[in-house]
Amino acid sequence: MGSKSDLEVMKDAGEALSEFGIEYEMRVISAHRTPEIAHEYSSTAKARGLKVIIAAAGGAAHLAGVMAASTTLPVLGVPIASSPLGGFDALLSTAQMPPGVPVATMSVGSWGARNAGIFAAMILATNDMEIAGKLAEFKLKQAEKIVQHDKEIQGS
Amino acid sequence: MGSKSDLEVMKDAGEALSEFGIEYEMRVISAHRTPEIAHEYSSTAKARGLKVIIAAAGGAAHLAGVMAASTTLPVLGVPIASSPLGGFDALLSTAQMPPGVPVATMSVGSWGARNAGIFAAMILATNDMEIAGKLAEFKLKQAEKIVQHDKEIQGS
Amino acid sequence: MGSKSDLEVMKDAGEALSEFGIEYEMRVISAHRTPEIAHEYSSTAKARGLKVIIAAAGGAAHLAGVMAASTTLPVLGVPIASSPLGGFDALLSTAQMPPGVPVATMSVGSWGARNAGIFAAMILATNDMEIAGKLAEFKLKQAEKIVQHDKEIQGS
Amino acid sequence: MGSKSDLEVMKDAGEALSEFGIEYEMRVISAHRTPEIAHEYSSTAKARGLKVIIAAAGGAAHLAGVMAASTTLPVLGVPIASSPLGGFDALLSTAQMPPGVPVATMSVGSWGARNAGIFAAMILATNDMEIAGKLAEFKLKQAEKIVQHDKEIQGS
Amino acid sequence: MGSKSDLEVMKDAGEALSEFGIEYEMRVISAHRTPEIAHEYSSTAKARGLKVIIAAAGGAAHLAGVMAASTTLPVLGVPIASSPLGGFDALLSTAQMPPGVPVATMSVGSWGARNAGIFAAMILATNDMEIAGKLAEFKLKQAEKIVQHDKEIQGS
Amino acid sequence: MGSKSDLEVMKDAGEALSEFGIEYEMRVISAHRTPEIAHEYSSTAKARGLKVIIAAAGGAAHLAGVMAASTTLPVLGVPIASSPLGGFDALLSTAQMPPGVPVATMSVGSWGARNAGIFAAMILATNDMEIAGKLAEFKLKQAEKIVQHDKEIQGS
Amino acid sequence: MGSKSDLEVMKDAGEALSEFGIEYEMRVISAHRTPEIAHEYSSTAKARGLKVIIAAAGGAAHLAGVMAASTTLPVLGVPIASSPLGGFDALLSTAQMPPGVPVATMSVGSWGARNAGIFAAMILATNDMEIAGKLAEFKLKQAEKIVQHDKEIQGS
Amino acid sequence: MGSKSDLEVMKDAGEALSEFGIEYEMRVISAHRTPEIAHEYSSTAKARGLKVIIAAAGGAAHLAGVMAASTTLPVLGVPIASSPLGGFDALLSTAQMPPGVPVATMSVGSWGARNAGIFAAMILATNDMEIAGKLAEFKLKQAEKIVQHDKEIQGS
Repeated sequence: MGSKSDLEVMKDAGEALSEFGIEYEMRVISAHRTPEIAHEYSSTAKARGLKVIIAAAGGAAHLAGVMAASTTLPVLGVPIASSPLGGFDALLSTAQMPPGVPVATMSVGSWGARNAGIFAAMILATNDMEIAGKLAEFKLKQAEKIVQHDKEIQGS
Repeated sequence: MGSKSDLEVMKDAGEALSEFGIEYEMRVISAHRTPEIAHEYSSTAKARGLKVIIAAAGGAAHLAGVMAASTTLPVLGVPIASSPLGGFDALLSTAQMPPGVPVATMSVGSWGARNAGIFAAMILATNDMEIAGKLAEFKLKQAEKIVQHDKEIQGS
Repeated sequence: MGSKSDLEVMKDAGEALSEFGIEYEMRVISAHRTPEIAHEYSSTAKARGLKVIIAAAGGAAHLAGVMAASTTLPVLGVPIASSPLGGFDALLSTAQMPPGVPVATMSVGSWGARNAGIFAAMILATNDMEIAGKLAEFKLKQAEKIVQHDKEIQGS
Repeated sequence: MGSKSDLEVMKDAGEALSEFGIEYEMRVISAHRTPEIAHEYSSTAKARGLKVIIAAAGGAAHLAGVMAASTTLPVLGVPIASSPLGGFDALLSTAQMPPGVPVATMSVGSWGARNAGIFAAMILATNDMEIAGKLAEFKLKQAEKIVQHDKEIQGS
Repeated sequence: MGSKSDLEVMKDAGEALSEFGIEYEMRVISAHRTPEIAHEYSSTAKARGLKVIIAAAGGAAHLAGVMAASTTLPVLGVPIASSPLGGFDALLSTAQMPPGVPVATMSVGSWGARNAGIFAAMILATNDMEIAGKLAEFKLKQAEKIVQHDKEIQGS
Repeated sequence: MGSKSDLEVMKDAGEALSEFGIEYEMRVISAHRTPEIAHEYSSTAKARGLKVIIAAAGGAAHLAGVMAASTTLPVLGVPIASSPLGGFDALLSTAQMPPGVPVATMSVGSWGARNAGIFAAMILATNDMEIAGKLAEFKLKQAEKIVQHDKEIQGS
Repeated sequence: MGSKSDLEVMKDAGEALSEFGIEYEMRVISAHRTPEIAHEYSSTAKARGLKVIIAAAGGAAHLAGVMAASTTLPVLGVPIASSPLGGFDALLSTAQMPPGVPVATMSVGSWGARNAGIFAAMILATNDMEIAGKLAEFKLKQAEKIVQHDKEIQGS
Repeated sequence: MGSKSDLEVMKDAGEALSEFGIEYEMRVISAHRTPEIAHEYSSTAKARGLKVIIAAAGGAAHLAGVMAASTTLPVLGVPIASSPLGGFDALLSTAQMPPGVPVATMSVGSWGARNAGIFAAMILATNDMEIAGKLAEFKLKQAEKIVQHDKEIQGS
């Protein structure tokens, strides 16, 4: 994430990864304030054995794009609604990448943080039967929870 | 893709996949006009051996979300600018997925179509050395092309 | 509605229906988390004797579109302002349906929830003299309330 | 429709109604330039036997709201993209009706024009077996057309 | 104003008018809920001796346009930010009037309410030396206040 | 107007004024490129006998605001859609004036140009029976034209 | 700044300037309420020895543009989010200057206020070794702070 | 500039610089496709004797931000309208920089390209009497051109 203040939102990504038994590291690296660390982190990520990078930032959210520039790993972007423009700036800055350097953009804020964790699991599951199994189970439980809410609301 | 008219944009996704030697099928399936086929396609995709789904739609672009609802495969969404609202509708309809059902949103239009093909390659490359190698090569060539443009512009 | 948290807004739809003596069922069904239930609900709704479906969702609000995909009943959509983008996402995701699969979109939030109930009454009133009478009466009372407010404000 | 220039878009509504064998009248009535005719038209529509009103306008699109103000018939609104603001103005002016006076808003432009015709058929079908049958048939044919496009694209 | 809840904002218009010694009446009249009163009010306003009409509404803010439709008096529109869309809907609904039926749109909310009162004074001042004098005086005092603030801030 | 290129749009304002027999001068004065002329023009306008100022500009459209800053005459603003942002910039720059310095904002582009001319006539008509008469006549003719269009469309 | 209420935001600009040892004056001058002072201030600024002007305003934020109109000094604009439109109005009003009269626009609100102070230092540093040195040091410290946050978050 | 296709717009920046007798180099460097060259260029720019960097990009326009991350030179950003979202994406991606790393954002497209050249001259002029003189002269000529247009339009 680009700023320590994003932690409140991005812990949801970490929780999702933990639910699927996926190890992760959580870092504060700024595309604008520590560009060399950002470049170093991204360009060595694959060699270090990372499989997916999740990058979250607000405002002119360049972190995901900067990460994607220096790696061939899939980069997931989470736009954070931290400026007065309500997240429109971060969404457009993350999603509108030029051809050749994709960023997989999630929804704005905590929805997107959680979804980034789940989407990372989906990527890993393309070659990991255990995570694939957990995803199938997760999908069932998620549906059951809605069914449970449905019952509660009908009973009310 | 949700409509045959999206083909003009989405052929760029196919070309990208071909560049990386990735086989794919291209289908016209509408979340709204053929919902059962959409559900069938998505819910059986994993069993059929698909690894990634790319879904493109314009306006109230629900196709990627509908695909994501019925599979644990990674779903990439390409918003198409086919309504008078210039793609803002398709971008928001594709990106703003609720927690639990991620869609990896690409940029609007042909940039995003090409990026979806590349991002699919990145996902597969997490477990395929050959594609990983091609991606590394692609990144170099892409950089070289910019360097070439840089030279041309300086010479002009 | 797509999420239990929408109940706070959507109870206004229920109250409106009750004012017109219209029976209804209130359900939590998610286009993304329980897609099969959504499809089942919508595709059997007409046979079960339902006349109108009201669907409410926030963010990439696909529920109304998914409902409309599997029925020929009129589907009313209520965009919910539950993401940081303030309801613009839900409005565009609900309204911008492709030709062939209409969704009748109401205003964002509680205004729209109440209006969905009233609009359902208007549909039923095309063939129900009693509801038609209640609508005429409702319109008069609504006007009287404004007239009353007008008097209060002039007296202040 | 509020202006003769809207005819190019709104003829699609007429064609849809004709496909379902629904008689209609097509009028140019302006909420702003002929307010008394608008009021007269709307307030007598029910007595004249009309079942549904479709209103289309661009810019500060008030026609649907003005129609809805003077009738208890269902009013469908079609936002027209005729100003430099690309239809955002007409969409918001049509959709954001206050509680008590619903307008069922369709998508912007020709998509919405066609959908208004279809949605009117859906309303009438709640009490007309013949139209209901035609809608079911229409839905099938629409799906078949997508399936046909799907085949063509796979063969290409 | 279209709703009693707009009073909190629109009292600023009344205060501005009072500062210029201009008599006014304050009414709650809804374009959508009391359309006949709205039409009656507007079409008789000139004969009753009114010189200017100020109309304020939120959401699909049609009141100013409906007023302007039935009078040749100048109509000033004040967009109210009362929906989840933050006033964008009311601004576009008020400003984007078709050619032939102008509404003079003020800024959104309380800024616009106050400005409507001042602008009404400007209109009257085109033929009223006393109000013209008060406007000149107001402009001076307003500037002095800024100068005073300027001094305070430099002293801080 | 702020630029000679705005003439294409603003000639509609002149035509409207001519229809009402109102004399006017048309000037190119830029708030940003000739600020002193702008200030001079505005601050002496009243003494020169002008009654209303119409100011048109695109992009960061400051001309109307700058005019309003130096006069107590009513200033009408016409936002021009001359930048890639489609007129949203000019609309917001013209309309969102702070309390104390109103600008009466018209719709974007040629609709607004024509409306500015008509609105100026409305202001003058508050004290000019002849213009008032012409406005009443104009309103009738405008309605008749719609009625004529209505007949044509029904005959088609 | 255009209003005393902007001080809460703009003190961050002052603090940034102080960090770089740059003297400044802080003024409340309104483009709309004290236009002559604004013109006077701007047109004499260079002669008075000023090097850079920072102008902050909300809504139809004209102050930076008005300053830029009357000087050849670099003018930095800070859009303030003080209207219900959340800063979109101030951003577009500040940034979209016509060719020939640039304003260097910063981000909306306090981010932009601080950045304006830093950018002013960058301008001065083009010819001031001491400020240039402080900027280099500032950049290092800023990076160190992120590194520190990074360590804290990894330790948590 | 981030892409060779931006040359059509950015040549206006070069022309402006030439008008002021300022030497410049024009480069195609992509934040996303040649990140190392971008970093190298920016981090060595000051040592190479550059005074100002102008960066132009479209879509998720990160180039200016990436430049600003690695230098203490003033960086001017020109948003290019090259995606279907009409430049809103590039404007927000360029302007909304976090505190500590300012980018001076110009208007979207060719207006901004020209203004970037002029603003660079303004920065240099803070310490260069010759450029300062040319700027003063430029401002006069620009005003004269408007005055000339004003005469033409009055004569027409």
